[in-house]
Amino acid sequence: MKNPVKVTITGAAGHIGYALAFRIASGAMFGVNQPVILRLLEIPQALPSLLGVGMELEDCALPLLYDIVLSDDPAIGFRETDFAILIGAKPRSKGMERNDLLLENAKIFAAQGKSINQHASADVRVLVVGNPANTNALIAMSNAPDLQPQQFSAMSRLDHNRTLGQLANKTNSKVADIRRAIIWGNHSVTQYPDISQCTINGQPAFELVSRDWAIDHMIPRIQRRGAEIIEARGLSSAASAADAVVNHVHDWVLGTPTDDWISMSVPSDGSYGISEGIVFSLPVTCREGRYEIVQGLEIDAFSRTRLNITEQELLSERAVIRDLLNQG
Amino acid sequence: MKNPVKVTITGAAGHIGYALAFRIASGAMFGVNQPVILRLLEIPQALPSLLGVGMELEDCALPLLYDIVLSDDPAIGFRETDFAILIGAKPRSKGMERNDLLLENAKIFAAQGKSINQHASADVRVLVVGNPANTNALIAMSNAPDLQPQQFSAMSRLDHNRTLGQLANKTNSKVADIRRAIIWGNHSVTQYPDISQCTINGQPAFELVSRDWAIDHMIPRIQRRGAEIIEARGLSSAASAADAVVNHVHDWVLGTPTDDWISMSVPSDGSYGISEGIVFSLPVTCREGRYEIVQGLEIDAFSRTRLNITEQELLSERAVIRDLLNQG
Repeated sequence: MKNPVKVTITGAAGHIGYALAFRIASGAMFGVNQPVILRLLEIPQALPSLLGVGMELEDCALPLLYDIVLSDDPAIGFRETDFAILIGAKPRSKGMERNDLLLENAKIFAAQGKSINQHASADVRVLVVGNPANTNALIAMSNAPDLQPQQFSAMSRLDHNRTLGQLANKTNSKVADIRRAIIWGNHSVTQYPDISQCTINGQPAFELVSRDWAIDHMIPRIQRRGAEIIEARGLSSAASAADAVVNHVHDWVLGTPTDDWISMSVPSDGSYGISEGIVFSLPVTCREGRYEIVQGLEIDAFSRTRLNITEQELLSERAVIRDLLNQG
Repeated sequence: MKNPVKVTITGAAGHIGYALAFRIASGAMFGVNQPVILRLLEIPQALPSLLGVGMELEDCALPLLYDIVLSDDPAIGFRETDFAILIGAKPRSKGMERNDLLLENAKIFAAQGKSINQHASADVRVLVVGNPANTNALIAMSNAPDLQPQQFSAMSRLDHNRTLGQLANKTNSKVADIRRAIIWGNHSVTQYPDISQCTINGQPAFELVSRDWAIDHMIPRIQRRGAEIIEARGLSSAASAADAVVNHVHDWVLGTPTDDWISMSVPSDGSYGISEGIVFSLPVTCREGRYEIVQGLEIDAFSRTRLNITEQELLSERAVIRDLLNQG
């Protein structure tokens, strides 16, 4: 057996963390020959519940799970970790202003960035799930000066998978036959799910569905899918979010298929004219543990308008929390 | 790709069902080359929540998940199904007598047995998880006269895995190195977790732990582990139960390792002197989709006493619900 990889989950006793921990420990993220050590972090008041999660993990007798560490101390939770999956975040409470939410979370993710910088493996890879995920990732990244920006990402894979699901459903095709969906921008209602590059069994998606359907139905539905789930379940997406985390890290580490790409929110490098200094969802391919932004895709006028809207939102989010960005 | 297998889950919007559906659909139960169709059943008042589960499954874009059927009609839910995983059951409410709980559930599982008999595949395999699981399985089985009793089982795999977990923890060994744990009897506080046959890296477990530890600590802790989890989490075991369901069906279909066995609650055939006509947890091996009860293990005086206690409990449960057993 290989040496175990260390995976830290924050907010590990929450709904997404609970759905995720067992998936990772059963081999879904790194394959069935890769042992793992789970380092589960929670806030102090959630420690009893986290203890229960730890007991249930023990009760699964999972052969790949070499150790479980439960803590409310980031210095312990992030110690030498290879992967930090940051789920815990402050949710919007009633009457809370949007800017207050951004600032409250900025403090949390600034502290976590510092702690990761200090305690994690030098090769750590970070995935931010807790919302506002893109800007939280930017803050964590900017507070980890010893790490490369490319070690930080935020999750747009759930939106990506939702796009595949909607398109498969609409065209009565299999998701495995669909390639090259893209989520551009922020994981928010301004995101732009783009199927203009999509093929289904090699055929362009826009030969099978109309642009009007995409604009009037698919895009708004993906943008507001989270709310649709909450309305049905009375709870926010958990198992599907956990599944997207598994996909995101799996593909980042083990690579994307040769004829496809995935969507990841990563630090903008100016590709497609997007401002640097924000974390923006882009189409990427992964090889040998590194992602590369897909280059040279045509951006038509409609897409450009959508890209601008979501870019502006991310720039305005950054303006709110700029004092917490460590520019050193 | 092979033809998809059809899997029905009852109580699919509950905590265990929610943890389970995504595991099955991602390939954990039947392997990554076996497509599945999920037929999710719920009671009418849980249909909105079930709709949300269906949306989240769609949002995962899982390549193996060929179709999702959501229904509150057993005739639809069990139609031509290959595997029926019966999780939904009436929980004990405050002030409810034990016999009332048995009878309320007996009605549910009698109806489900009849429906499975009428609608499911002739080769269907049934796993009862909803408590009291062993007696519920007996009722379902006895109401399905066209099926073989060996097509019905109840779950003791969570208890089995908990035993491996406790023993690994106590001896600081890997669960993968432990063989031949046994859960005997009822999935209740009378169950008998038996490590007298266990080896750890080939060494008898009782050379590494004392019989007193097993009797005074391990056995009572496994028997009451469910309550321990509830106390910590404020919720009953869900992800660990779902994981045990995955293990149970996986091994039943794909076989047990050559040098090990598992615990399954199955109709007693008189082995080890256990009365026929009850569903009793026993050590079994599985080959080609069928289980066989492990024969010839020595039962010492201590074990015999424990077997008698749990057998008596199952006989008394059967006495309460005997009018619902279809003897035709």
